[in-house]
Amino acid sequence: MIPEKLLEVLKNYGVVAIATQGHDGPHLVNTWHSYVQITNDGRLLIPAGYMQQTEANIASNNNVLITVGSSKVAGINGPGTGFLIKGTADFITTGPDFDTIKAKFNWARAALAITILSATQTL
Amino acid sequence: MIPEKLLEVLKNYGVVAIATQGHDGPHLVNTWHSYVQITNDGRLLIPAGYMQQTEANIASNNNVLITVGSSKVAGINGPGTGFLIKGTADFITTGPDFDTIKAKFNWARAALAITILSATQTL
Repeated sequence: MIPEKLLEVLKNYGVVAIATQGHDGPHLVNTWHSYVQITNDGRLLIPAGYMQQTEANIASNNNVLITVGSSKVAGINGPGTGFLIKGTADFITTGPDFDTIKAKFNWARAALAITILSATQTL
Repeated sequence: MIPEKLLEVLKNYGVVAIATQGHDGPHLVNTWHSYVQITNDGRLLIPAGYMQQTEANIASNNNVLITVGSSKVAGINGPGTGFLIKGTADFITTGPDFDTIKAKFNWARAALAITILSATQTL
């Protein structure tokens, strides 16, 4: 389900952007590629430290857009590639997904779990 | 107007995320730090190759959110920092701003010009 090239991008250093729909416009937060874990069933788990506005937005509308990119992975038109991920998100504060996140990031107050609907290479 | 640390981030390799409001939710596109030019009056100029949906969204609502980040610049809580920029955007296809972009990126069909309303360090 997750393209090999996307996995390769996540192995390289980079910034993840996560967009949600707020009442007065889009909301955008960041995390690091290295913080993203992938579950056996192909979801993304991201530690949430703050992300209060993201959590509030997801409670109304759980659609998220996520971008990742790396200059170290070959792209369509040259060096460097990026992906746009469309998915749905949940904030998880108990159970195995939360435990997985908490084991690595003890500061996390929740696991942001992303079910991928599509992952499109953009660069 | 533009924080020194933000300029430092842009000098390092990284991915820029640009969010706009679409009719059915946020829209997110990427570019590279190295593609961003800064005008004498403190605006950001970004070459637009595709970005058709971004252009259409801006025609209805010119508010944009932009994130940048680098692990190479010291942050609030450790190595690595990021910024959230709120601004207004214009697509420019003639005149000096377009010429500036076109001189460096001959594939650009427009200059996406961002007037910064706020730039907040998030990491």
